[in-house]
Amino acid sequence: MKETQDSLKHFCGIVGLHSRSPINIPHKLFYTLFSLQHRGQESAGITYRKEDKLVTYKDLGKVSDVLTRYLTKDIHSEIGIGHVRYSTFGGNKVENAQPITISCNKGEISLAHNGNISNASEIRKALTDNGAIFQSTSDSEIVLHLIAKSKEKDFLQALTTILNQLEGAFCFTIIFNDMLIAVRDPNGFRPLYIGEQDGITLTASETCAFDSIGITNYRQVEAGEMVIIDKSGQRSIRFSEDKKKHQCIFELIYFARPDSYIFNHSVYLARKKMGAMLAKADGKLGDIVMAVPESGNSAAIGYAQEANLPFEFGLTRNFYVGRSFILPTTEKREMAVRTKLNPVREIVKGKKVILIDDSLVRGTTSKILVKILREAGAAEIHLRLSAPELHFPCYYGIDIPTKEELISNSKSPDEIAKFIGADSVKFIPIDDLRQCIDDPDDFCYACFNGDHPYQHK
Amino acid sequence: MKETQDSLKHFCGIVGLHSRSPINIPHKLFYTLFSLQHRGQESAGITYRKEDKLVTYKDLGKVSDVLTRYLTKDIHSEIGIGHVRYSTFGGNKVENAQPITISCNKGEISLAHNGNISNASEIRKALTDNGAIFQSTSDSEIVLHLIAKSKEKDFLQALTTILNQLEGAFCFTIIFNDMLIAVRDPNGFRPLYIGEQDGITLTASETCAFDSIGITNYRQVEAGEMVIIDKSGQRSIRFSEDKKKHQCIFELIYFARPDSYIFNHSVYLARKKMGAMLAKADGKLGDIVMAVPESGNSAAIGYAQEANLPFEFGLTRNFYVGRSFILPTTEKREMAVRTKLNPVREIVKGKKVILIDDSLVRGTTSKILVKILREAGAAEIHLRLSAPELHFPCYYGIDIPTKEELISNSKSPDEIAKFIGADSVKFIPIDDLRQCIDDPDDFCYACFNGDHPYQHK
Amino acid sequence: MKETQDSLKHFCGIVGLHSRSPINIPHKLFYTLFSLQHRGQESAGITYRKEDKLVTYKDLGKVSDVLTRYLTKDIHSEIGIGHVRYSTFGGNKVENAQPITISCNKGEISLAHNGNISNASEIRKALTDNGAIFQSTSDSEIVLHLIAKSKEKDFLQALTTILNQLEGAFCFTIIFNDMLIAVRDPNGFRPLYIGEQDGITLTASETCAFDSIGITNYRQVEAGEMVIIDKSGQRSIRFSEDKKKHQCIFELIYFARPDSYIFNHSVYLARKKMGAMLAKADGKLGDIVMAVPESGNSAAIGYAQEANLPFEFGLTRNFYVGRSFILPTTEKREMAVRTKLNPVREIVKGKKVILIDDSLVRGTTSKILVKILREAGAAEIHLRLSAPELHFPCYYGIDIPTKEELISNSKSPDEIAKFIGADSVKFIPIDDLRQCIDDPDDFCYACFNGDHPYQHK
Amino acid sequence: MKETQDSLKHFCGIVGLHSRSPINIPHKLFYTLFSLQHRGQESAGITYRKEDKLVTYKDLGKVSDVLTRYLTKDIHSEIGIGHVRYSTFGGNKVENAQPITISCNKGEISLAHNGNISNASEIRKALTDNGAIFQSTSDSEIVLHLIAKSKEKDFLQALTTILNQLEGAFCFTIIFNDMLIAVRDPNGFRPLYIGEQDGITLTASETCAFDSIGITNYRQVEAGEMVIIDKSGQRSIRFSEDKKKHQCIFELIYFARPDSYIFNHSVYLARKKMGAMLAKADGKLGDIVMAVPESGNSAAIGYAQEANLPFEFGLTRNFYVGRSFILPTTEKREMAVRTKLNPVREIVKGKKVILIDDSLVRGTTSKILVKILREAGAAEIHLRLSAPELHFPCYYGIDIPTKEELISNSKSPDEIAKFIGADSVKFIPIDDLRQCIDDPDDFCYACFNGDHPYQHK
Repeated sequence: MKETQDSLKHFCGIVGLHSRSPINIPHKLFYTLFSLQHRGQESAGITYRKEDKLVTYKDLGKVSDVLTRYLTKDIHSEIGIGHVRYSTFGGNKVENAQPITISCNKGEISLAHNGNISNASEIRKALTDNGAIFQSTSDSEIVLHLIAKSKEKDFLQALTTILNQLEGAFCFTIIFNDMLIAVRDPNGFRPLYIGEQDGITLTASETCAFDSIGITNYRQVEAGEMVIIDKSGQRSIRFSEDKKKHQCIFELIYFARPDSYIFNHSVYLARKKMGAMLAKADGKLGDIVMAVPESGNSAAIGYAQEANLPFEFGLTRNFYVGRSFILPTTEKREMAVRTKLNPVREIVKGKKVILIDDSLVRGTTSKILVKILREAGAAEIHLRLSAPELHFPCYYGIDIPTKEELISNSKSPDEIAKFIGADSVKFIPIDDLRQCIDDPDDFCYACFNGDHPYQHK
Repeated sequence: MKETQDSLKHFCGIVGLHSRSPINIPHKLFYTLFSLQHRGQESAGITYRKEDKLVTYKDLGKVSDVLTRYLTKDIHSEIGIGHVRYSTFGGNKVENAQPITISCNKGEISLAHNGNISNASEIRKALTDNGAIFQSTSDSEIVLHLIAKSKEKDFLQALTTILNQLEGAFCFTIIFNDMLIAVRDPNGFRPLYIGEQDGITLTASETCAFDSIGITNYRQVEAGEMVIIDKSGQRSIRFSEDKKKHQCIFELIYFARPDSYIFNHSVYLARKKMGAMLAKADGKLGDIVMAVPESGNSAAIGYAQEANLPFEFGLTRNFYVGRSFILPTTEKREMAVRTKLNPVREIVKGKKVILIDDSLVRGTTSKILVKILREAGAAEIHLRLSAPELHFPCYYGIDIPTKEELISNSKSPDEIAKFIGADSVKFIPIDDLRQCIDDPDDFCYACFNGDHPYQHK
Repeated sequence: MKETQDSLKHFCGIVGLHSRSPINIPHKLFYTLFSLQHRGQESAGITYRKEDKLVTYKDLGKVSDVLTRYLTKDIHSEIGIGHVRYSTFGGNKVENAQPITISCNKGEISLAHNGNISNASEIRKALTDNGAIFQSTSDSEIVLHLIAKSKEKDFLQALTTILNQLEGAFCFTIIFNDMLIAVRDPNGFRPLYIGEQDGITLTASETCAFDSIGITNYRQVEAGEMVIIDKSGQRSIRFSEDKKKHQCIFELIYFARPDSYIFNHSVYLARKKMGAMLAKADGKLGDIVMAVPESGNSAAIGYAQEANLPFEFGLTRNFYVGRSFILPTTEKREMAVRTKLNPVREIVKGKKVILIDDSLVRGTTSKILVKILREAGAAEIHLRLSAPELHFPCYYGIDIPTKEELISNSKSPDEIAKFIGADSVKFIPIDDLRQCIDDPDDFCYACFNGDHPYQHK
Repeated sequence: MKETQDSLKHFCGIVGLHSRSPINIPHKLFYTLFSLQHRGQESAGITYRKEDKLVTYKDLGKVSDVLTRYLTKDIHSEIGIGHVRYSTFGGNKVENAQPITISCNKGEISLAHNGNISNASEIRKALTDNGAIFQSTSDSEIVLHLIAKSKEKDFLQALTTILNQLEGAFCFTIIFNDMLIAVRDPNGFRPLYIGEQDGITLTASETCAFDSIGITNYRQVEAGEMVIIDKSGQRSIRFSEDKKKHQCIFELIYFARPDSYIFNHSVYLARKKMGAMLAKADGKLGDIVMAVPESGNSAAIGYAQEANLPFEFGLTRNFYVGRSFILPTTEKREMAVRTKLNPVREIVKGKKVILIDDSLVRGTTSKILVKILREAGAAEIHLRLSAPELHFPCYYGIDIPTKEELISNSKSPDEIAKFIGADSVKFIPIDDLRQCIDDPDDFCYACFNGDHPYQHK
């Protein structure tokens, strides 16, 4: 149940493209952004370079709303970047859509940003004190100000200096002159991949974007790495000393597409392991395993295989809800859930159901689902979450409701079970979660344990 | 892969509503039709009765396009019908949208139709010879002509006589005066259910419509049965002598929603049995079982459980394709498939894959899928279809491509395997399919074996 | 002030086109209908013949909304008809849009209708008694029923017989086989012209349609005349004995475009004569002459020239109102008038203003205009109407409010002046109006004097 | 013929509103902007202050497209500004829509601008050199940068200093804190009025905006004046020493609405004088006087009255063209002109026609009109322009085609007459034009004579 408010939201997805010879860049930007649509549905935009000028087109709406016009255009270009956004701070305004394109003393620059710069307000204040004006509420604007203010003559030198002033999460794709630049922050909060085939270089938040245009050869952009692509090829710069990595574990738990490869992990396999870990903790418990589609699917398969229980499509999703159609807010939440998900009564009836979802935010949707499953005759309902209990805010690009709204801040799992009407509720423990990944020390668990890598007031 | 041309299409879904006291009928029509959206996406419409007059609103588009306006209106009424349509004959014209509402010597009548009257052209010719005019190309208009022409004074008597002149598939919901009338043809080609709760009676093509508004109590309208609902309650009339039943097996194989109950079968369980039957025929064969989502899901689960093989979500579907967004036709078919479905490489690589789909029409989509899976490293690909080989047209409401286009009319399963690049292709035999249902003699298999219940030129 | 409810409404405009060799018929239908847009803004539609089949496209909306798609299509055809409609009876439904295209025992027929058949309900009842069904509330459907029912083998023979059963106002353009047929009723209520140039024949309600595609050669279709155009040329049939003519005087007073020629009169010159006649009756009265734009323009010029007073553009119209933008109904009427019309203070201040409009319906708009002009400093305001006092309904195609709503049924001109705040209000007397046209006995004045040519209950 | 490319374009219109007690500010901004729609049709926007925050909504489109949503909202506020824009430089981008709202060290500021700052590029370069970034191509952004950079603590002091650095045309409406500020440049290029009634203060480009909300009491904001409105009332500051005035004569000739009062002139009366002046120069010449509607209307009346010739509505305008409907560019220009304007044949035939328009740009539209009038039988056609010959560009807010495109740069009036097929063409001489206004030395004639008040490269 991820399109309703009872969920976490991601901030953005980004792409960058460079071709040795002119191709229809906007066309390829469309397909790569379309494959990243799940990372942001509120605005979409692209910038491409045409006759030495940057052309930016962006608007509120999905990739298909905003960018379909490019599918029938024949535009030749060698370089472009793109962005999809879910807006939180500052709301749903076109001023916050990206890429942001500016002109300054260095020339024209366009930038797309995924993440959240955690010291943005300090930098913004310093810039403002010094006379800068801001037209959006997005962090990304500060980076462009810093570039314009820099006394360094060399653009890359200037950029390197600036990147070292930023804290928090940032992956950037940037166009400057004939260069495409891909940047990933030193802590590696957000994923970024890069690959080249037949003279076309793509950089994108997830590998499903590479699949979308048939590039099979890619690698992760490393934390603290900047890659510059131009006619002469690819160069890599380590712009930062080595830092501890804080890759976002929630990308693996929920945000990324299961067919993507991020942080050098298969998302699907990682989720299966989380499900299996939940199963191990449960021992022999229910009759069937079901997922809350689609977010619980992979973990549910992992659970079922580990527990040797049948996986069933026990909740049918009406695919006409939620994308093209959003219920008026006057409708009750329960009607919204019922319209989207309906149980298969013959499967559920009399069964002890293990229901797998990725995380529990406010618990309101789960409460309705449990009610619906009870009505369909479920004998027992055991909710299992492939994320640990959510307790803390994220300053690095995930929109988590306030502490007060997070159900795990006011209720224990048993109390939650009582509240939502389930027979039991269990979360994966952080330690178990760590066992599901190869390099557990390189990930950020701050929303679960409060160990934020930076200090925040 | 059901939104592309390489698929079968259904004609329609219908609903009818009666309430003992005035309620917001259009509002409930919205939700019940929305749950039947999969039965027709090209037009939607409703008729309700307001101050003794019939009000009809219909247009090209989905339920959410056409009828969302009713979610914020407060209309009190006691009776209404609704329709979703996929248009074939006569194309995509608003004139063919339903319900059709007419005035005639009996008064105002509104009718919604699911099915295909196979002797429509003969009746139409007789009517035309006698001076009737037709404004649409739909069969349904002839029924209204016959009613208007009938010399019978009593409406139900007239309707009974007329229904006995019709051949083929017809479920009707009709408003006449303060009566809601539900009709199912004597052969029972198409499903129709009826149920009452708290004074509200719903009749609808599938039971998921009942779930959508919380009516838990329903039964099948029998073949040859007419149910009349008005203030005084429900009456049932058998308008036809008993005939052999020819329920559409394809409703169970593919069209209906898995959470629906039709023809007294759970759709989901029936499909699981078909999958299991395919597994039995295969014996020990592959490493993993995957579905072509969503149409192959239930059968794939059945196969996996029977074969004791792991079911995996090996193809990730991009849910932003196909409903709100349709690729321009200038794009190549392969791009369309790739944009919609992407394999999980880590799952597929080096594996012997059993891929389950419901049916094979032209084979073009399957060919692309096989290619995509090969690229992802699949060691073997065995395509299994839960429908037998398609050889013949349907005259009762399914849009099947021409004989020449059906791949099974020109190729054996082995030849198909070669054509699409799979290691093997197998269809469920009709006899196996019959074993998956309780009353196999009551179903129509004409599209597989050519045994059409009526003669057609 | 003609877009608000305080006005009369016309029913329709029609066109028909035939070309000896294939041309882009829909393209030319667009331009001719566009020039008749003032005759109906609620729906638009065309039918053209393509490969022996009739193709109809119609929808609610203006010509530019509905038919612009044809401007970029390249369709070759030899025959087409078109229609614009302002819907009254039966409201704003797409079912009432025209042309109506049917198939019947004679073949396919498409028909567009301007006017109102005054014995439609009797014929409709007879047809209904005999088993006909009606899908719209428009009169036009009965004509198609009569054709289908006719035993005459020859289509034109059948049509002739039927036309003689109809009473009231009807101009038709009809496609049957390769024939375009233009019909004007024996009383000649509504205008219809026909002309041919370079192998292209156009028939249309007003001559401005001929100008729009550059046909300079045309004549009136006579009352009781049917013109048949096909490959072999034009034939004319007098389908009715000679009847007294009842041409609608309101077409000249208000409905037609001033640049049109109808009923063998220049509309602009006729209106100037009406204005002059008003001036003669007034003698020396005011300082300046102003029109309520646009409907009072021509008469105001006539008044000014006769009275030898300066004509001034004293009311500025905001052209952004009323076509693309309609104020929400929650706004007050006065705000709507003020937004549309604003006086030129320097012109009006201290002046005795003669204000010319075409007719007075409820008087509400005039009351606001008088108030606005007083605020702008007008010393005196004398309202003059180029139509006599409206007392009676029209059964022949004009939508006149109920008798109770017509201000002239409850107030004398002096009382109206008091009500709206003018210094005086005068209507052109019927006798004066008759002097403004060449053949006054050939016109219908029933809405003024109640002498309806047919009996109506 | 002003909606086609063969015309001059204005840049903008602005409004500002302040109310002593909270009112529905967006609602009133709608109506005042709607009355200024003729000053810019490509984007519209408003900013209002709500709970000490600025809310900006703007988009491409007309006022009715972008802002109608506010007519049904109930928003209470005390201060707002609005803008309509015709975009030239930088094209049709939402980034260039106004008001521009920023946050900086002074707080939040929103600004709307009418005019063109002629030293913008120098200032922009200086700002850029100093590290400023620009997100739009509009001049207006530089003003906000200058404010942010200013070391002056007092906002109004800062603003005053900055305004003295600007050259060229600028009227601003600005919101800062609880202040509405109205600014008019020292040369007074563009008009700006201010008025207060019942505690509501409006400032707007033309007085028709005051009429739209019933404020009858207003005065011109003087050149070099800044008016500050807050709770305590209105204050006026002369921010500049006295400079020579260069009011745009083209506002009077063509841009402003005839019912407006600008530069202390009635627009309508000024145009009548221009027409009269043309008539004096002609002596006794033709039979009738006609205008190219609507731009020639007022001058044509002036001509007719002076020459004692009849004014006639000889060209009928189809009001459905041009606002809601724009012909596809594939259509020929001649078809576009014919669709919009059609002569009244009976008026034109055999007559010596004096045709009045405001100005001649490329001459293409006039050529078509002359052709159309000839076809309608005009004996002679004499085109008279109420603007002198256009020779030079404008740097102060009018979009004039390049020198090469201006027909008067390559042809004398006689050559133009020959080119467009008229019997004669005459422009009002600058000296005659000067006699039509009270204070001719206070106007700018640079587009006619090249005397630009500032130096431009």
